[in-house]
Amino acid sequence: MSARKMVYFFGGGSAEGNGSMKELLGGKGANLAEMASLGINVPAGFTITTEVCTAYYENNRQWPDGLEEQIWEAMGKVEKVMGKKFNDPENPLLVAIRSGARVSMPGMMDTVLNLGLNDNTAEGLIKLTDNPRFVYDSYRRFVQMYGDVVLDVPHEEFEKLIDAVKEAKGYQFDTEVTAEEWKQLVGEFKALIAEKTGKPFPEDAKEQLRGSINAVFGSWNNARAIRYRQINDIPGHWGTAVNVQAMAFGNIGDNSGTGVAFTRDPSTGENVFYGEYLMNAQGEDVVAGIRTPLPISTLKEQMPDVYAELESIYKKLELHYRDMQDIEFTIQEGKLFMLQTRNGKRTAHAAVRIAVDMANEGLIDKKTAVTRVEPAQLDQLLHPMLDPKEKVEPIASGLPASPGAAVGQIVFNAEDAEKWSEEGKDVILVRNETSPEDIGGMDAAKGILTARGGMTSHAAVVARAMGKCCVAGCSAAVVNDEEKYVMFGSVKLNEGDWITLNGTTGDVIAGKAKLVEPSLSGNFGTLMEWADEFRALKIRTNADTPHDAEVARGFGTEGIGLCRTEHMFFGEGRIKAVREMILATDKAGREKALAKLLPIQREDFYGIFKVMKGLPVTIRLLDPPLHEFVPHEEVNQAEMAKEMGVPVSVIKERVAALAEFNPMLGHRGCRLGVTYPEIYSMQAQAIFQAACQLAKEGIEVIPEVMIPLVGFVGEFEAMKKVVDDAASRTMEEYGVTIKYMVGTMIEVPRAALIADQIAEKAEFFSFGTNDLTQMTLGFSRDDAGTFLPAYVEQQIIEKDPFQTLDQVGVGQLVQKGVELGRQARPNLKLGICGEHGGDPASIRFCHNTGLDYVSCSPFRVPIARLAAAQANIEKPRN
Amino acid sequence: MSARKMVYFFGGGSAEGNGSMKELLGGKGANLAEMASLGINVPAGFTITTEVCTAYYENNRQWPDGLEEQIWEAMGKVEKVMGKKFNDPENPLLVAIRSGARVSMPGMMDTVLNLGLNDNTAEGLIKLTDNPRFVYDSYRRFVQMYGDVVLDVPHEEFEKLIDAVKEAKGYQFDTEVTAEEWKQLVGEFKALIAEKTGKPFPEDAKEQLRGSINAVFGSWNNARAIRYRQINDIPGHWGTAVNVQAMAFGNIGDNSGTGVAFTRDPSTGENVFYGEYLMNAQGEDVVAGIRTPLPISTLKEQMPDVYAELESIYKKLELHYRDMQDIEFTIQEGKLFMLQTRNGKRTAHAAVRIAVDMANEGLIDKKTAVTRVEPAQLDQLLHPMLDPKEKVEPIASGLPASPGAAVGQIVFNAEDAEKWSEEGKDVILVRNETSPEDIGGMDAAKGILTARGGMTSHAAVVARAMGKCCVAGCSAAVVNDEEKYVMFGSVKLNEGDWITLNGTTGDVIAGKAKLVEPSLSGNFGTLMEWADEFRALKIRTNADTPHDAEVARGFGTEGIGLCRTEHMFFGEGRIKAVREMILATDKAGREKALAKLLPIQREDFYGIFKVMKGLPVTIRLLDPPLHEFVPHEEVNQAEMAKEMGVPVSVIKERVAALAEFNPMLGHRGCRLGVTYPEIYSMQAQAIFQAACQLAKEGIEVIPEVMIPLVGFVGEFEAMKKVVDDAASRTMEEYGVTIKYMVGTMIEVPRAALIADQIAEKAEFFSFGTNDLTQMTLGFSRDDAGTFLPAYVEQQIIEKDPFQTLDQVGVGQLVQKGVELGRQARPNLKLGICGEHGGDPASIRFCHNTGLDYVSCSPFRVPIARLAAAQANIEKPRN
Repeated sequence: MSARKMVYFFGGGSAEGNGSMKELLGGKGANLAEMASLGINVPAGFTITTEVCTAYYENNRQWPDGLEEQIWEAMGKVEKVMGKKFNDPENPLLVAIRSGARVSMPGMMDTVLNLGLNDNTAEGLIKLTDNPRFVYDSYRRFVQMYGDVVLDVPHEEFEKLIDAVKEAKGYQFDTEVTAEEWKQLVGEFKALIAEKTGKPFPEDAKEQLRGSINAVFGSWNNARAIRYRQINDIPGHWGTAVNVQAMAFGNIGDNSGTGVAFTRDPSTGENVFYGEYLMNAQGEDVVAGIRTPLPISTLKEQMPDVYAELESIYKKLELHYRDMQDIEFTIQEGKLFMLQTRNGKRTAHAAVRIAVDMANEGLIDKKTAVTRVEPAQLDQLLHPMLDPKEKVEPIASGLPASPGAAVGQIVFNAEDAEKWSEEGKDVILVRNETSPEDIGGMDAAKGILTARGGMTSHAAVVARAMGKCCVAGCSAAVVNDEEKYVMFGSVKLNEGDWITLNGTTGDVIAGKAKLVEPSLSGNFGTLMEWADEFRALKIRTNADTPHDAEVARGFGTEGIGLCRTEHMFFGEGRIKAVREMILATDKAGREKALAKLLPIQREDFYGIFKVMKGLPVTIRLLDPPLHEFVPHEEVNQAEMAKEMGVPVSVIKERVAALAEFNPMLGHRGCRLGVTYPEIYSMQAQAIFQAACQLAKEGIEVIPEVMIPLVGFVGEFEAMKKVVDDAASRTMEEYGVTIKYMVGTMIEVPRAALIADQIAEKAEFFSFGTNDLTQMTLGFSRDDAGTFLPAYVEQQIIEKDPFQTLDQVGVGQLVQKGVELGRQARPNLKLGICGEHGGDPASIRFCHNTGLDYVSCSPFRVPIARLAAAQANIEKPRN
Repeated sequence: MSARKMVYFFGGGSAEGNGSMKELLGGKGANLAEMASLGINVPAGFTITTEVCTAYYENNRQWPDGLEEQIWEAMGKVEKVMGKKFNDPENPLLVAIRSGARVSMPGMMDTVLNLGLNDNTAEGLIKLTDNPRFVYDSYRRFVQMYGDVVLDVPHEEFEKLIDAVKEAKGYQFDTEVTAEEWKQLVGEFKALIAEKTGKPFPEDAKEQLRGSINAVFGSWNNARAIRYRQINDIPGHWGTAVNVQAMAFGNIGDNSGTGVAFTRDPSTGENVFYGEYLMNAQGEDVVAGIRTPLPISTLKEQMPDVYAELESIYKKLELHYRDMQDIEFTIQEGKLFMLQTRNGKRTAHAAVRIAVDMANEGLIDKKTAVTRVEPAQLDQLLHPMLDPKEKVEPIASGLPASPGAAVGQIVFNAEDAEKWSEEGKDVILVRNETSPEDIGGMDAAKGILTARGGMTSHAAVVARAMGKCCVAGCSAAVVNDEEKYVMFGSVKLNEGDWITLNGTTGDVIAGKAKLVEPSLSGNFGTLMEWADEFRALKIRTNADTPHDAEVARGFGTEGIGLCRTEHMFFGEGRIKAVREMILATDKAGREKALAKLLPIQREDFYGIFKVMKGLPVTIRLLDPPLHEFVPHEEVNQAEMAKEMGVPVSVIKERVAALAEFNPMLGHRGCRLGVTYPEIYSMQAQAIFQAACQLAKEGIEVIPEVMIPLVGFVGEFEAMKKVVDDAASRTMEEYGVTIKYMVGTMIEVPRAALIADQIAEKAEFFSFGTNDLTQMTLGFSRDDAGTFLPAYVEQQIIEKDPFQTLDQVGVGQLVQKGVELGRQARPNLKLGICGEHGGDPASIRFCHNTGLDYVSCSPFRVPIARLAAAQANIEKPRN
């Protein structure tokens, strides 16, 4: 390590690093280096690499040899460029210490500003600036931040001291506090720190720097950063870089200020310069959302020269990066400094629009445009919207911080949001403002409403990243989170009351408004068409009803990959016949009951086939164990007994006989078909009656009959015979011929291991990765909640294996199934119908493994189309 | 098929087939051909091959082309040798039609004797023999058998007609019926058949033959044959051959007779000629056990010449086959005909003795001797025996038909035997005599007692094959199976009363006698020593207590392969601490409760280690889910609440929280260790405290700590650390060093798939094939009872996969685990500890897969030693 370069300098029109070095320098550091090289005015500084962070943790939180030397060497260069000296009372160089991981984790890690101040340098700075109020304000900010971040003295303790001064003097705002009072507070802060830590505040700037660097390293593993990484799938071993950069002061006076901006609108994607700023403020004032900032357009009037310079810089940066940029700047006494540029976070809506617009503008090509949208993010566009046909009367309006609509019951803190959500309730989190501690509650809520803060406030940024509806800065809202109510003018809403948010317009509506389903149109439709040009995988859907099938066709599905027949057994007028069948003591009795179900099932299939005309429909025969169809509560058993005309003891006995220790591994799937072939025979008959009827009506039907839970080739053979018999009987009856296939799910590990045997008989495989995961890992999905969180926390498992396919384990069985299956039957049709079929990482795996299609829920079809295109762009199929 | 040779002739000193052609000709046909070639006098005949049977079933029960011609061609040769003509009224040839599968299935399939008789040939035969009573007795037997076997007219209907005649005439025995009366009965039988079938009895002998052949084919798939095949693991696709052979008549008069014999005693293995015969009888009279036959030694006095010839023949046959033979013969008017020879069935006791004796006699070598005993059969020798030290007073005595002792409650029919046994009761089946219909009940019973029949009666033969205790021909027993009691002189025992059988001596004891465990000694010990010379696999045992460990050492175990620690949690004074731990709401509370368990667990391990001194002991850390340790009944919950000093609601809540949908796939195994490391830590501490203590006492201890249910390498790493920490802490404390290993069970499919990763960290693998089978097949062992029987019946699965390893599916994962494991760690120790470790077929698989050891229950250790030897003889390991 000691031989390694650990510190990279930037500034004065050149840099040791560049924009491609994100892994080493973090996103912020790499981009600062890149901007410096482009000749953009950034305060000089240096970046300590992510490798140092990793080494720090591996080395029991000690600095590697040589780091100290490299830091002071780089500091020397900064001093030279800035014309100031670190720790020099005459002309002190103050620096900011900021974290910077490979990908942005806004607000999750620590920052220390104004570092280098002590009683000596503060005096020197006053001499230089002749602005004691600025200096003592900066000084108190530094002591407060350092105390909080480095020395773990709670933030609130400092605030109490400030409040005491304000109260004593009758001040309302911090801006009213005088230089002398700030100076006095610095003293009080230091006393507080000495009391709490048992050590005096470090006056030595070098010691301050060392402490701050360690605090940034340490913050990589604070609870909220770990939580954020889990939610956003960021590996823990990446580590963070540390950026040490000369301070530019936005808080020197009224010709100073600070702002953040986007080169295009991050909410809509519109090609307009978009941002906010605050005069006489430091960066955290804007991001924290404590004062409501001004729109960037106002700067054009207020400081036209600065604005013009900013405009030329942002255009240069967007052209350079060929992507929408999120920039931070500070104006120090009329002079513009750029503090950061990075690819801007954006809503899915904006991501789609920007990708399509940039392709149309010729900035990028179509293929690049397709890679510019995270497939998972599209989920946002597929969220429900307020029904435009319904007239709703908003009770208030805020900033449209993250689009989509949400309906839920009001809660006033993150903890309640998580608790209520676990109870299955839809909740809206209502806060004055959010902070990084609220991240879990925001994740649990359907939508977020804040009374304060702008479009770049914490709530807005995080909600957009989560694809969650958010209305921010709704100043009409007066929140009382102690007594748990919120006033909108005279309208009072309490905890648990229903509320509707429209994140696209900023409207707040009392009660439950009607929402409508989204559709593909405009830029979204265009991007989907482009994606289709690049993908190799077909995308099917899991749909059990004509309505689901219709929705999926609207989203561009190419067939049904999984039509579950058991849901059809629960409906009105059906469950009774199902129960009659279950109670029957012999085959004749079961057949009598099944005869009642036949016309109903036929209608089900007729409807689905009709919607899917011309596209294949994979129908899975009955899968769940029979005990799912009988009542388990005493009162319902009595009701069933009455309905069936039998003593309740008969029902109880049958229910008891059907009970299983491990129903997941019990009498279900084709095991039902083997023991009661009449069930599958009826289902096959219903399928082919519906298909024949439609064929006669001139509608093309492509049925694929799927036998579930096969583990032995004999099971498949026996069940295929039942289906084939029903098919030929029915086709003869109707006098038409239907082309159909009989295949199986590969969901029992054994099936993957003997896939060659099965493929001799089966015409298609559909990998049922839900059950395959349960059995391969030995995880009951319904029970894993007791240990899975501990597994993820202890990093035994990277991701929930029911969301993202466990490629190392389960993936081996899928690959084996594919290989063996294709060996035995080269044209074997292969798909996947577990929930992984809608997960982008799993879709990439399916593409690389050579499957023909993935099948996912209707609302994930567009996500799958895009993910499949990106997989094929990444690794084209021959 | 038509070009194929389908019929093989034998007789007159030569044969077309030979003894090696069992697959084609069946056991009986092959041996008849072999005897004919050896110049032994067998009635001429021919064999229709098993291939014809298979073709018959494949061809919708039609004869293949050319079969008819080949039959009549062979019949011509038989006529020539026997000097008679089939269907010739002047000098008629009568034939017997018998089934003959590859392996003997005694009494399971159909036989027709005396075929060729009709009114014409009967008259001709009377002229030839001048013995109308013999002719009409034979004729009525034929019509009766043909009616029963070929035409499905129930046996009893014929018996009723005979009984009517006997009653009218006041006869007691069939032998009193006159020729004229038999003639009259033939007429009545034919009328009965015409009435029941709507068709006249076939007078044409050719039609009779065709019908009988089809009946034998058909009987291959009758219910009891299928059942027999299931119990004895005989594949359904083998089919049966059909033997058509000239009749030799044992029932012509008092210088005729028939008998069965063994070249050595099939019960004890003693080298004496052993058998029984009946004069003036046909073969089925002996086998059916209706008349009690005479011992073979009596024949020496009665017909010295015939006996001398028989003696020379049996010696010739045993020398020829180099194995104990089971022979059948008929004496027709003083002339000896051999009807059958085959390797004789024998008790395990006899099998061991014969193998050892023959090796000592120089007839076979040691290696052959080791292959001569079926490992599974040894189970019989490992059955309990009557305690020789206890004096018991028998109430009656019968033939010692199948050794070992049994204690149970009396039942009087097979159905009750099966029913009571399913309820968990031990039963003894008491019958006048058994028939093939009783096979299920015999299998369910602990022992069988019959009032009638000899050592070769149905009951005796089947019980020996099953290795089940049997006392046969206990003439003192008067059975009333209607009113369900049995009298032994004046002693009356009712249904449900306890009884003890000693199958080794023939004693019957009222009540429950004391039984003792078997041991290795004498011939058994010798054979085991020989087996050890040839085996490569080590044999370990599954033992949880010092007592089990001691038993297993007596049987020659080489270590403990699985010591389950959870059983230790249930004992007196333990379960309370376990429940305290479960109720604890935090780690400190759990640790407090665990501290109480520590000394108890230490004692457990101390005892086991001490018994196993010098041998490795694999200890599995806690595996079952915690809900197995809490009470589920309300009353027990109340009791626990009282004991724990908490409200019952606390218990209920905790029990409810621990409930799982699929406990098999839930929070158990190392998942407990990951979430509650303190449990494993306590267990490891107890292990190493016990080991260190013993080391100080100078006793060698070889602990192997096993982590259960590992699926992810991170689980193993975390748990290994817990164990290693406890080990080093404890060893330091005691000041001694113990060599130990930490390994894992491979029982989750994923573990086999990533075995290379795991082997990087683990020092041994033990394949837990019970759970591996459950997960790979998706079969819950506790629930599979609802469909597994149907699977076996429909031949989807050949054998219960929980008894015999599913080599095709689960076996692939074992092989993969072995390969990957050894890749990563060439000296990885590999074993198996599922119940398959005691199953001979699975042991062969383990040998061939390259495992180091198998581990099985103590009583199966000798079986495993023998099976391992046979596997290595079959396929020696390099």
